[in-house]
Amino acid sequence: MKELYVGIDIGGTNTIFGFITKEGKLLSEHRIPTKGHSNIDKYLLALKNALIKKAEAYKDDYQLKAIGTGAPNGNYYSGSIENAPNLEWKGIIKFSEKFSEITHLPVVLTNDANAAAIGEQLFGAAKGMKNFIVITLGTGLGSGIVTNGEIIYGHDGFAGEIGHTIINRGGRHCACGRRGCLETYVSATGIKRTVYKMLADSIEDSILRSIPFDKLTAKNITEAALKNDKLAILSFEYTGQILGQQLADAVAYTSPEAIFLFGGLAKAGKFIFEPTKRHFEESLLAIYKNKIQILPSGLMNQNVAVLGAASLAIKEFN
Amino acid sequence: MKELYVGIDIGGTNTIFGFITKEGKLLSEHRIPTKGHSNIDKYLLALKNALIKKAEAYKDDYQLKAIGTGAPNGNYYSGSIENAPNLEWKGIIKFSEKFSEITHLPVVLTNDANAAAIGEQLFGAAKGMKNFIVITLGTGLGSGIVTNGEIIYGHDGFAGEIGHTIINRGGRHCACGRRGCLETYVSATGIKRTVYKMLADSIEDSILRSIPFDKLTAKNITEAALKNDKLAILSFEYTGQILGQQLADAVAYTSPEAIFLFGGLAKAGKFIFEPTKRHFEESLLAIYKNKIQILPSGLMNQNVAVLGAASLAIKEFN
Repeated sequence: MKELYVGIDIGGTNTIFGFITKEGKLLSEHRIPTKGHSNIDKYLLALKNALIKKAEAYKDDYQLKAIGTGAPNGNYYSGSIENAPNLEWKGIIKFSEKFSEITHLPVVLTNDANAAAIGEQLFGAAKGMKNFIVITLGTGLGSGIVTNGEIIYGHDGFAGEIGHTIINRGGRHCACGRRGCLETYVSATGIKRTVYKMLADSIEDSILRSIPFDKLTAKNITEAALKNDKLAILSFEYTGQILGQQLADAVAYTSPEAIFLFGGLAKAGKFIFEPTKRHFEESLLAIYKNKIQILPSGLMNQNVAVLGAASLAIKEFN
Repeated sequence: MKELYVGIDIGGTNTIFGFITKEGKLLSEHRIPTKGHSNIDKYLLALKNALIKKAEAYKDDYQLKAIGTGAPNGNYYSGSIENAPNLEWKGIIKFSEKFSEITHLPVVLTNDANAAAIGEQLFGAAKGMKNFIVITLGTGLGSGIVTNGEIIYGHDGFAGEIGHTIINRGGRHCACGRRGCLETYVSATGIKRTVYKMLADSIEDSILRSIPFDKLTAKNITEAALKNDKLAILSFEYTGQILGQQLADAVAYTSPEAIFLFGGLAKAGKFIFEPTKRHFEESLLAIYKNKIQILPSGLMNQNVAVLGAASLAIKEFN
């Protein structure tokens, strides 16, 4: 019997899980709502039932080996989800312990950006690298930092929050309650805020003037840039400048071999990579110049949250 | 025969070396000039001769085991000193290889802040800690970052340059050629610059108005603060604010258990620690609050450069 791993990605709205071989091949992907369960135990039961039912399809060829989970504020050391702002369950949820009890499988947990970094190391563009950073550009900015071949979890399990380093004290309000965090400028939401600031400040005509804030996406902005919309291109330049400058600071901490960008905003291709790389090189301390690559994730069109979560289980239990 | 280790601290003016037991006891300390040798080989020969001569005193009780060295731009991986701005020798100096050849002892090399961190881990206040940061506050600001029990050297050997993260783009000129680096504000030199800025901006009377820039030291400023000199106290407040805020960002990278401050400026005690801790706590992301200590180095009145360098050799070869 071949080994099969489960990757779970717990989001505020949906929980997505998938079955992954130890070679990193995703066999299938499924979802249940995260919301609407009266308590955590009901949610875990619903998740287990869905998982067992879908696993039926593989029972002749595979044996379920372990479960990896990515969750907001997921603590690798304790296996707990701790005070996650976007989830209904408050306080400290002993996810790994509880879910292992009902599934009779080993369960390991971290946050989605750390999971993405492990996925990149096992199956993506960071294969063989011992020092690298993965930046996920979604609603926020997540980061997974690998040094000496291992993820940095820190003393409490919560290291790697580059999205919450401050790039402008007293700047934009952040969901974390502080102001000026990197992710308020550099993320799918951050570039939307930049576009709206530019629409307010400038008198330049723009395709983007017809899209309400709620509907605006990194994809819209990329499409406008492809049509040579000046304001859209400027918004990428601004975003890339801030990202490039802050990544130059990140290098002064861990001196990685490469930095990988993943997520909706990274799909903007040259519009985001070109200004990011230019400002990055300009900002680096001399000893680091022309040594460090900024690259797209090698898992760009895959569900890296599910694959990464499974990778954690493969790394841990294979 | 007991084991004896050598710690060497290569500075721009002098090279200091000491003999250290594997329990971290410094038996004696000696120096030769770093400058004035016509080439690197002459310097290494002079250093070897001094070392062998002084080692005579211990030959009945101890056996020399290995040499650890701290040097500016010292690369742990290659054992080379690479393009150090403050040293006479340009380019890449294969220090460990050359010095091992003439001493017939194993030689290991890093920079002084990494050496300090290893010293803190083996013999100082970080004993038993797996995640911590050491900040050395001298002419510049050096840093050694430990995660998962190991120093972060990064892919090229040059990780841990927190002193060269940017806290004010377009701010004070730095010796590295860029502007606004943390060390231009937070270091013995940084606080001098702050005092002079305050003397220029303010009309407040101050003891410090009688001291020329060249003669001003962190010690002078501490003495003035002890006499309740308002401007001196304000200069510590300003320095502590910048340090506390930037250390809060550092936590978002590696989430350490503790941050240790070492060096002349750290000797100012409450004047620097109080504002640093206050601004640090105020600036932290919620998940990190009230978890992380900012402490004085446990090796404050020792020659941590020499002890740290020897610690590296003890860690590597014991």
